[in-house]
Amino acid sequence: MKAYVITVGNEILKGRTINTNAAHIGRVLTYAGYDVIRMVVVPDDIDEIVWAFRDGISRADLVVSTGGLGPTFDDKTVEGLAKALNLELELNQEAYSMVKGKYDRLGVELTRERVKMAYMPRGARPLPNPVGTAPGVYLEYGGKRIIALPGVPAEMEAILDEVLPQIRVPGRYYYEESVTIRGIMESTFAPIVSELMRANAGSVYIKSHPRGIEISKPTLEIEVSASGSSEDEVKARVKEVIRRIMEEARRINNECC
Amino acid sequence: MKAYVITVGNEILKGRTINTNAAHIGRVLTYAGYDVIRMVVVPDDIDEIVWAFRDGISRADLVVSTGGLGPTFDDKTVEGLAKALNLELELNQEAYSMVKGKYDRLGVELTRERVKMAYMPRGARPLPNPVGTAPGVYLEYGGKRIIALPGVPAEMEAILDEVLPQIRVPGRYYYEESVTIRGIMESTFAPIVSELMRANAGSVYIKSHPRGIEISKPTLEIEVSASGSSEDEVKARVKEVIRRIMEEARRINNECC
Repeated sequence: MKAYVITVGNEILKGRTINTNAAHIGRVLTYAGYDVIRMVVVPDDIDEIVWAFRDGISRADLVVSTGGLGPTFDDKTVEGLAKALNLELELNQEAYSMVKGKYDRLGVELTRERVKMAYMPRGARPLPNPVGTAPGVYLEYGGKRIIALPGVPAEMEAILDEVLPQIRVPGRYYYEESVTIRGIMESTFAPIVSELMRANAGSVYIKSHPRGIEISKPTLEIEVSASGSSEDEVKARVKEVIRRIMEEARRINNECC
Repeated sequence: MKAYVITVGNEILKGRTINTNAAHIGRVLTYAGYDVIRMVVVPDDIDEIVWAFRDGISRADLVVSTGGLGPTFDDKTVEGLAKALNLELELNQEAYSMVKGKYDRLGVELTRERVKMAYMPRGARPLPNPVGTAPGVYLEYGGKRIIALPGVPAEMEAILDEVLPQIRVPGRYYYEESVTIRGIMESTFAPIVSELMRANAGSVYIKSHPRGIEISKPTLEIEVSASGSSEDEVKARVKEVIRRIMEEARRINNECC
């Protein structure tokens, strides 16, 4: 099952805000059994948001967006989502109750900007926001699932946590382990990684991340991961490759020094 | 002038690594006078890399990528770039000298994995890497500029710094200032932001970032930014809007408490 992550917000494009939301969503979806195939960041612009949702739906089974659900003029994600799917944007009664409830408790008037957060594409289900005001949006469309989350990290995380049991890929497990190797250049270790990948015929994924400086102070973090239908088997496969990597690293370090 | 940022790497999609590189590049390009219009993250996969470069070139004047330049089997950015533009991938003599020089100094053999880092699309110019081994790639194509940078942050930053004077948009200035307002909900301030945007007819951009909790402890960071051809004028425009925002915030806080 494939997942696609959309981040909406000029502040991400300008590098004013680091996109920790996309990383969090990518992490959660990977462990929930998805292959995250693409992430995009688009500005607070209807046409760009429409493009992102259409691109996501055409490529993935699950599309998760973050940002653009709030009360201001430039919160346009829901409008963009409705337009992308040619669905009518309407006041969602359940969402309206959620939003109204929050402001009522405070004795604050329900202005146009506040009611805006209760508009959703026809057929959508609001996801309660336990932290803030704007509900998330859950929508099924042509066998695909779309979830729109707010951009405030605490709100995004809380809503994603709550919806997770409904979107988890059943019987699909992901496991990952890393090992850090010192004194070996990435270019020295590259053929070993290739060979181990070949030997395991796609059943594990190995990636080296240089953490030091290639030539003078090489430090390599080697990440091994696998997905599969048995949690124990996936774990065992990764652990065996980690063992082989440590063996090879010892051998190279003994040879060269 | 529009810019497009590509990040290549499975580790970003899986949320294992937070995409600080894209934020850095977005920041640098914004201050260099560009509108960053889209960011994408794609896996270490040729077809996906090809898609990203083609999408970038079709939409922006400058495309900057990060990641996938190293010596391992899954460093495929340069191959993807060549394929995207239908250019031949060839051993670049200048890049070869750079790479060879680094390993020669260490008395280390120039293996296939190391020479790989000197292959570039025909017509490309290598950008010296003062920190690591893999040179960056600079390419002009149909009036557009493409820059491929490594994924190791220190290497990416160093190469971007050096190439910046060549890509800066002449006579274009960006300025941004923020102000933090306490005790006012984003939904309360939304109409004021809209009104100030209207009054300034697109010459400034105002965005509110909720930092607290909308209802119980509202804290708003309000960002005001502008671009233009006069540094002083752009600054003055932003400062005047910041002054108005603080005035409005004081007025609301006095009214309500």
